[in-house]
Amino acid sequence: MGYKDFIDLSYKPKDDIVCQFRVEPAKGISVKRAAEMVAGESSVGTWTDVSTMKPRIKKIGARIFSIKGKNVKIAYPSILFEKGNMPQILSSIAGNVFGMKAVEGLRLDDVSFPRSITNSFQGPLYGIKGIRKLLGVKKRPFVGTIVKPKIGLNESEHAKVAYDAWSGGIDIVKDDENLSSQKFNKFEKRIVKTLKMRDKAEKETGEKKVYMANVTADVGTMLRRAEFVKDNGGRYMMVDIHTVGWSALETLREANDDLKLVMHAHRAGHAAFTKDPRHGISMRVISQITRLIGLDQLHVGTAVGKMFETKQDVLNNCDALRSNMNGIKTTMPVSSGGLHACMIPALVKIFGNDFIIQAGGGVHGHKDGTVAGAKSMRQALDAAMNDIPLKECAKKNKELATAIRQWD
Amino acid sequence: MGYKDFIDLSYKPKDDIVCQFRVEPAKGISVKRAAEMVAGESSVGTWTDVSTMKPRIKKIGARIFSIKGKNVKIAYPSILFEKGNMPQILSSIAGNVFGMKAVEGLRLDDVSFPRSITNSFQGPLYGIKGIRKLLGVKKRPFVGTIVKPKIGLNESEHAKVAYDAWSGGIDIVKDDENLSSQKFNKFEKRIVKTLKMRDKAEKETGEKKVYMANVTADVGTMLRRAEFVKDNGGRYMMVDIHTVGWSALETLREANDDLKLVMHAHRAGHAAFTKDPRHGISMRVISQITRLIGLDQLHVGTAVGKMFETKQDVLNNCDALRSNMNGIKTTMPVSSGGLHACMIPALVKIFGNDFIIQAGGGVHGHKDGTVAGAKSMRQALDAAMNDIPLKECAKKNKELATAIRQWD
Repeated sequence: MGYKDFIDLSYKPKDDIVCQFRVEPAKGISVKRAAEMVAGESSVGTWTDVSTMKPRIKKIGARIFSIKGKNVKIAYPSILFEKGNMPQILSSIAGNVFGMKAVEGLRLDDVSFPRSITNSFQGPLYGIKGIRKLLGVKKRPFVGTIVKPKIGLNESEHAKVAYDAWSGGIDIVKDDENLSSQKFNKFEKRIVKTLKMRDKAEKETGEKKVYMANVTADVGTMLRRAEFVKDNGGRYMMVDIHTVGWSALETLREANDDLKLVMHAHRAGHAAFTKDPRHGISMRVISQITRLIGLDQLHVGTAVGKMFETKQDVLNNCDALRSNMNGIKTTMPVSSGGLHACMIPALVKIFGNDFIIQAGGGVHGHKDGTVAGAKSMRQALDAAMNDIPLKECAKKNKELATAIRQWD
Repeated sequence: MGYKDFIDLSYKPKDDIVCQFRVEPAKGISVKRAAEMVAGESSVGTWTDVSTMKPRIKKIGARIFSIKGKNVKIAYPSILFEKGNMPQILSSIAGNVFGMKAVEGLRLDDVSFPRSITNSFQGPLYGIKGIRKLLGVKKRPFVGTIVKPKIGLNESEHAKVAYDAWSGGIDIVKDDENLSSQKFNKFEKRIVKTLKMRDKAEKETGEKKVYMANVTADVGTMLRRAEFVKDNGGRYMMVDIHTVGWSALETLREANDDLKLVMHAHRAGHAAFTKDPRHGISMRVISQITRLIGLDQLHVGTAVGKMFETKQDVLNNCDALRSNMNGIKTTMPVSSGGLHACMIPALVKIFGNDFIIQAGGGVHGHKDGTVAGAKSMRQALDAAMNDIPLKECAKKNKELATAIRQWD
């Protein structure tokens, strides 16, 4: 069948993975032809007819069932996939196809997984509901920070910065994505010191506080470090999902049945393949996959701030994390990158209440230091939750007033 | 320091990871300014000055030491990195930076790792030399095939196609990147049957034959499957490196100290981030990383065939795999995608002798079937090695003659 016979516009997907691609064909090739090549290469075809083909195999090929302009929908029968094996699924639907000469650009915009596939993944252990229960926060969004500078503080300095942030009202303190276990800041020592400060901050503020320890490494090391976090009373681990990879994440999630940590996903590197709307994989698809595997929290962009994504992109990502997915628990969206207190009302309007607002520079860059920066974040959040204009609220809150003077 | 103070044009890199980026700044931003933001975000900076910065930390920041047009070289002191932790290294040098608004496009073109970093990775167990020794082939390139159709054959059919290919003269038979363990073709059963056929083919041809079994899955499953291959007399495993991820590959490589299998890297999905020369990560960098972690063989493009890369791209990739790298063993380049016998002389001119020529459709799509397709490949290779024009050689070799009629 070479790359032929993959179109069936009358087909209604049933037990199929449905992919929505945007196809930018190479010069001289039609969208339809390029789509056929994509459907073939990603299922049972290759560039030429093969003598080893069997009639029954033709029947399990991918089916293009919709072509609208450059938007093409392809259904892949679930039998093509190994259940619970995300790398195998992606090697099919998001594999060789990007490298074909026949497409100038190819974008995997959206995926819908049938129940036979979603059932084979674990999904988040906590989800948004579980995280709210664990932290005892019913309605408002969470405020978080990243310890800054990104890298270079020693373990005690790190713990002190975290403590200051918690004291000022921050719920969640996160390691930087670049920090794992360096000479000047060893993982185990950092975890012990920082969790001790967390306990102190909890006692003093009467609030539950979270430390997200970055376990990013090879699999054996990640598992040991996650266990270490658990043994020392930690409740969260964080991991850089793209530089670690899907295989390790499945394994980490499986181990988390025992560890029972909340899993936070940082997405360092994603924009190498999500940024160009004409090529690569959308962050919406990454959101779906991350949720399916079972991470509880995921960075999805800011709409404002230093990252590139539009409001619509961010809403698409949030939808993938929070809407119904055959009973898979939800994943909490995290907004992070160039944020500060003054952006909070706009963020709450975009994201709603079920999300985390993370500010690194926006907390530690506050003119009066980390505690003041943290306070300005909580003050701005209170204002947003009570529909009070920031400037109004700033009259009684000097930290917010300073943040406004500094950044607005 | 916000995103300032990251330029030092007089700096000479020593114990640094040196990255060559191509920077396409966003509108209204200079290359220099965009480069500073990249260097800051990927080391110790963020979008604003932070109160928690220390003078000693400024000193370990990244240094831009060369700006030529849009090409920027940045040196990262090795202290910023956790040795042997590729995910952490990539979260720094190939992490958030791609998503910054300040860059319209950002391409990581090349990386050079200092000895302190290369020493912390295992590198290939075999390398080109070890593979030649294992297979008893001194000089010529290897010819391989992928079982086709990509997916859908049962275990016995799969083994039979492999046997036919080996009988016709193919050295290496590879699972398709989409095939792992599906309902219609279970991993264990396939391995047993295919390795049995390999033994038969070896006995009949007097040549060493290779079966590359695709272990792509979560980490636990991969390790179990690799062990199964070993226990059943297999010598190779293959893995889809990008859909599996770097963390799992490090763990698999570590386990391979005991397994002692040759590790073959398929790169399904790479082109989502390698295809656009103005954005993402080059395949040359992927080649460097893959070699450092320790895969013995890697797909690097075809220059001809169905994949997009140019001859220069492919040569850059081969150079990354085969040139000196602080004593790390070499990785064998694999050329695969839309190839057939008629392309072999051109391929040998481009790649030299140390590589694998893989043809799927080019073997099983031969008009007279798989055995004939395999023969045509070996005949073309013999011609290329002896500098005989293909048409000359085809006079005495009907399989090659048919391939020429079919495809040339």
